[in-house]
Amino acid sequence: MYKSEQLAHQLRQLIESGTLKAHEKLPSLREQVQLSGFSLITVMNAYQELESRGLIYAKEKSGYYIANTYAEHDYNAPLIVSLNSNIEINSLIFKYLKSIQGEHIVPFGSAFPSRDLVYSKKLTQIMGQIARNKKSYDAIDNLPPGNFALRKLIAQRYCMQGIPTDPDDIVITSGAMDALNLALQAIAKPGDYIILQQNIFYGAWQAAERLGLKVVTIPEHPKHGFDLDAFEHILKTYPVKLCWFMLNSHNPVGFTVSEDIKFQISKLLHQYQVYMIEDDVYEEMYFGHKKPLPMTYYDQNNLVLHCSSFSKTLGATFRVGWVHAGKYSQHIQHLQLMSTISVNSLLQTALVEFLSNFHYEKHLRNLRKNLQHNKLLFYRYLELNLPPECKIEYHPSGYFLWLKLPKNIDSMPIYESLIQQKIGIAPGQLFNITAQKQHYLRINCSFEWSDSVQHSLDQVIVTLQKFIRDE
Amino acid sequence: MYKSEQLAHQLRQLIESGTLKAHEKLPSLREQVQLSGFSLITVMNAYQELESRGLIYAKEKSGYYIANTYAEHDYNAPLIVSLNSNIEINSLIFKYLKSIQGEHIVPFGSAFPSRDLVYSKKLTQIMGQIARNKKSYDAIDNLPPGNFALRKLIAQRYCMQGIPTDPDDIVITSGAMDALNLALQAIAKPGDYIILQQNIFYGAWQAAERLGLKVVTIPEHPKHGFDLDAFEHILKTYPVKLCWFMLNSHNPVGFTVSEDIKFQISKLLHQYQVYMIEDDVYEEMYFGHKKPLPMTYYDQNNLVLHCSSFSKTLGATFRVGWVHAGKYSQHIQHLQLMSTISVNSLLQTALVEFLSNFHYEKHLRNLRKNLQHNKLLFYRYLELNLPPECKIEYHPSGYFLWLKLPKNIDSMPIYESLIQQKIGIAPGQLFNITAQKQHYLRINCSFEWSDSVQHSLDQVIVTLQKFIRDE
Repeated sequence: MYKSEQLAHQLRQLIESGTLKAHEKLPSLREQVQLSGFSLITVMNAYQELESRGLIYAKEKSGYYIANTYAEHDYNAPLIVSLNSNIEINSLIFKYLKSIQGEHIVPFGSAFPSRDLVYSKKLTQIMGQIARNKKSYDAIDNLPPGNFALRKLIAQRYCMQGIPTDPDDIVITSGAMDALNLALQAIAKPGDYIILQQNIFYGAWQAAERLGLKVVTIPEHPKHGFDLDAFEHILKTYPVKLCWFMLNSHNPVGFTVSEDIKFQISKLLHQYQVYMIEDDVYEEMYFGHKKPLPMTYYDQNNLVLHCSSFSKTLGATFRVGWVHAGKYSQHIQHLQLMSTISVNSLLQTALVEFLSNFHYEKHLRNLRKNLQHNKLLFYRYLELNLPPECKIEYHPSGYFLWLKLPKNIDSMPIYESLIQQKIGIAPGQLFNITAQKQHYLRINCSFEWSDSVQHSLDQVIVTLQKFIRDE
Repeated sequence: MYKSEQLAHQLRQLIESGTLKAHEKLPSLREQVQLSGFSLITVMNAYQELESRGLIYAKEKSGYYIANTYAEHDYNAPLIVSLNSNIEINSLIFKYLKSIQGEHIVPFGSAFPSRDLVYSKKLTQIMGQIARNKKSYDAIDNLPPGNFALRKLIAQRYCMQGIPTDPDDIVITSGAMDALNLALQAIAKPGDYIILQQNIFYGAWQAAERLGLKVVTIPEHPKHGFDLDAFEHILKTYPVKLCWFMLNSHNPVGFTVSEDIKFQISKLLHQYQVYMIEDDVYEEMYFGHKKPLPMTYYDQNNLVLHCSSFSKTLGATFRVGWVHAGKYSQHIQHLQLMSTISVNSLLQTALVEFLSNFHYEKHLRNLRKNLQHNKLLFYRYLELNLPPECKIEYHPSGYFLWLKLPKNIDSMPIYESLIQQKIGIAPGQLFNITAQKQHYLRINCSFEWSDSVQHSLDQVIVTLQKFIRDE
């Protein structure tokens, strides 16, 4: 055992035995050197080890404190994750994305709806008209925060949900990933604590890693999607600066968090003065009568930066998104000026035309109807034919089904076997990088039912059967 | 005097007197604490003070060394710049960009050619056709490194210049600023030394600041544009990791560096194993018979990352660029996957059509012809009518004129006075943020000559006369 492990072990025993209590201050590094007789390096390594396990936490300019990890709770303990696997996460995701985008790969692994559903003939007509118009070459809107008319239309959509919004609250971005990253950069500094959902869009992991943030994960609540107790526990335990959540048509799991829970979340955000980056790119994929509310609705203090885009509704290659940034708009614009500067003006102008004449609303209605229809067919077929050990998480929104396999089954080799058969699925590890092995997988159900879809699903089913039998 | 200033002063005297010699190692922080009797904080502050003045430099995991600053040389000493004015640079630039983009502002301050010259009816026709085509919704190219056919066409253009290039060397980006930033992030780490030209596109200052780089500036050579002696001197003096240069139709000064000097630069890059980010967005703006060569031509070791775009030739709002990244392509793609993910596929597809049918070459020939014509008219008029104290730097490429005013004149109040008169010009401070006061200004001469252009130039001339007379 290294000396630092020895020290960490001693301290851990003191914490577990309750001798050192939650929120109690640890001796400073120097004090610990004197107390323990170990060298400064050894003490630092031991503290880092304990911090990465979530047993202690650091407060800037103050020192180390005991985390409240051993409080009584009946959910999975939140987890501090040390991120130092840069190349690994990226390589996994990159390899995965390349593998599922081959021309002859059945796109059940895609994060985007079927191309047939998002294609809008009207929008392409508008783009054609605008492309021929010399005015689309006008440089006036070639600066952050982007086309004013488009920002006004987006602001109106918030207003229609009861969220007072000024066009200047909105910044147009190069897709949602750009929006999320800009929002994160505007709020977080290296070393800050961020809460991520245990299963989340992999971009959140990458962004947190790139900015050098300390990640605490919050597990999903099996019934409500979001676990308020766990959230409050984390806020009490760690000096959290911000969180990055998806609460509507959650990717990959599929739940939409209730209005009551959102309200409670917002109260906690306010109480602990914690920021929230809300990834809401699936906000339009509801099947009910009312569009689910974003957290911005409950936010009185501009703690929420709400990010969305047109990529899920108008096409993956469209690359226009936005952030509802409120008073952080200027900061985000400055960051934009140092990266992409602005978004192609033709695309912005086309969206103005498309949105202002209600073509978009009509397009969305059709999109939702078709997604609901297709998803139900997928669900019924899988429910009937999957091995009984597989559970399907079905939610009446979005276009994903989240499959839970028996605990001892790793979804990674299943993905690899299926990709050999030219079928893409999304293995759970893409969304929960903390797990060594994941018995979940995500299936995109946005595609129109056909013999070939059925045939591909049969291959998925047979492959799952094989893996479960062989186990 | 603070204690740290006292110590810095003492050390400085030792350096200037030659007691401490170039490349000699300074005592470590701890040693210096013991030697000097000052506290650790005082010693650290003193060392930082000396480092920010370029008198000493830090080597990772080794310590501090005396810089070679007092070697004999007859040019302006290169300058280490401490960048900690984040908000200031950004605010200045942001305010400036907003001010010159008003609808009724004469665009002599713009960095982009006249909209009339870059507008291509053919390209807009192609975009119109492609927009109507469902295939533009195809997600297959919606991943880094971008559309294969477009990368192939860009690679061919390098090949035509005698630079063997594979499509996989190219990564398509959201404009040149995105390309430059991605290239920089792929190479540089916080604390690295970077050389910037003393006058350079402000984006370089912003990027260096954002990444926490240590900047050494190299002054322009009054005759050749690039000062090889100064370059070698800097490379000898500081542990430079990379440089960011513009060598063709330099913005704002206008020079194009000769092939011989480029060859010498490349030898030095190789000798010192220093990377170069080459900003070459004006590469097509030559007036001679031969397109000037990028540094990639001389680069045997993939030390050069060459960045360019279509924004200067097809419109500021187009936002499609690329980086010739060579073996860094993978790394840059990973970075892209964490920011913008990809570029709108319609724009990429339109460029494929436009480039593969030689429309682009024809467009560029016309563009160059018109730019040369317009610039000459501006030059003649200004040469005849400017106060004799103003010198014009004219180069047979690009569309900028760089005006040198009498030394005691600050171009900032001139810009402010002209913007009141609804005329934009670019004050020198935008390009050389190290100077408190700058007696240079840049004029965009890409506009077709007209009575109104002449009238606006008259206003510029009268304003300059007034400032010079009042001084």
